[in-house]
Amino acid sequence: MKNTIITISREFGSGGRTIGKHIAAKLNIPCYDEELINKIAQETGLDKNYIKETNEQSEQNWLLNAFANHLYHGNNMQDYVWLIQCDVITKVANEGPCVIVGRCADYVLKGKANLLKVFIHADINKRARRIVDVYGETDEKPLKRIKEKDKKRASYYRYYTENEFGEIHNYDLSLDSGTIGIDKCVDIVVDLYKHINE
Amino acid sequence: MKNTIITISREFGSGGRTIGKHIAAKLNIPCYDEELINKIAQETGLDKNYIKETNEQSEQNWLLNAFANHLYHGNNMQDYVWLIQCDVITKVANEGPCVIVGRCADYVLKGKANLLKVFIHADINKRARRIVDVYGETDEKPLKRIKEKDKKRASYYRYYTENEFGEIHNYDLSLDSGTIGIDKCVDIVVDLYKHINE
Repeated sequence: MKNTIITISREFGSGGRTIGKHIAAKLNIPCYDEELINKIAQETGLDKNYIKETNEQSEQNWLLNAFANHLYHGNNMQDYVWLIQCDVITKVANEGPCVIVGRCADYVLKGKANLLKVFIHADINKRARRIVDVYGETDEKPLKRIKEKDKKRASYYRYYTENEFGEIHNYDLSLDSGTIGIDKCVDIVVDLYKHINE
Repeated sequence: MKNTIITISREFGSGGRTIGKHIAAKLNIPCYDEELINKIAQETGLDKNYIKETNEQSEQNWLLNAFANHLYHGNNMQDYVWLIQCDVITKVANEGPCVIVGRCADYVLKGKANLLKVFIHADINKRARRIVDVYGETDEKPLKRIKEKDKKRASYYRYYTENEFGEIHNYDLSLDSGTIGIDKCVDIVVDLYKHINE
């Protein structure tokens, strides 16, 4: 399978973003994470932070948005960002092999590109330690923060894809970064990528 | 992590049993699948086929059993098999590194041994082809057969472990054998096993 795109879906604090970056570096291909946000901001003219947060809206917000949508028979701002996001993801995938972190890229590119779909998860206590130790989070309640983030990501994914976030069948490969370790997760994906592109 | 036990949970027709056997052969450690059934049969004095089928009882049967249990305040035959099964799994795990296929070994050994918990899944259509091509299944409706088997395994797992079969967080590593291929699945697990035992 030539020109395979690696999509990384990840739980907050699992190190999925770091894993994505390292994979891309080892394979010498681009990694789209912040880059994707920048491109979407450019296309929409909206603020980067706003784009960043659109995939972490609360369940209540989605309901309100859905309600507003229904009332006005039109797209709201988040739906507009979603459409541009789909467009940007499809464009970067068409440019050649790359790693795309988050943003439902696995769903967006389904049937449009050869994919290696990866999910990175970890025990919630390990993730809590990671966001304090590695990201320098000062939050006094990291577990609460993670639970909220998990809920919001799942809600966003469900809303736009009608699939469940972290549903095992959606991924070619799912790894527990807490038990396997970040570096070994990178090596496993790099090795598998090389294998399927042989 | 010395003396790690590899547990393989797998969907029917995904090739998980074959993968387990090949992993064990490459690592030169025992693989418990039929062997486990034989040991449980020996301990219980029950027929091998009966043991084999206890993890594929219909949902209705579990309900009847649960009801009978409640009525008699005692263990029924399947609960008895479960207890012996837990005992046999714990015993073989204590004997040293091995591969254990199915029988909820991931749950039974939790906290009792160092585990590498693997889940093997695949698209249902690929599994249907596999049970016809490889296992020589003559069933005219392989999809229906797979769905029934999936349901029964999930029901058994849920009944005894109170967890969901195929819930991504229960496994260190989940692989889609349909997209990755049987041989590569074997190599990934063997490589990871060697890594964590270094």
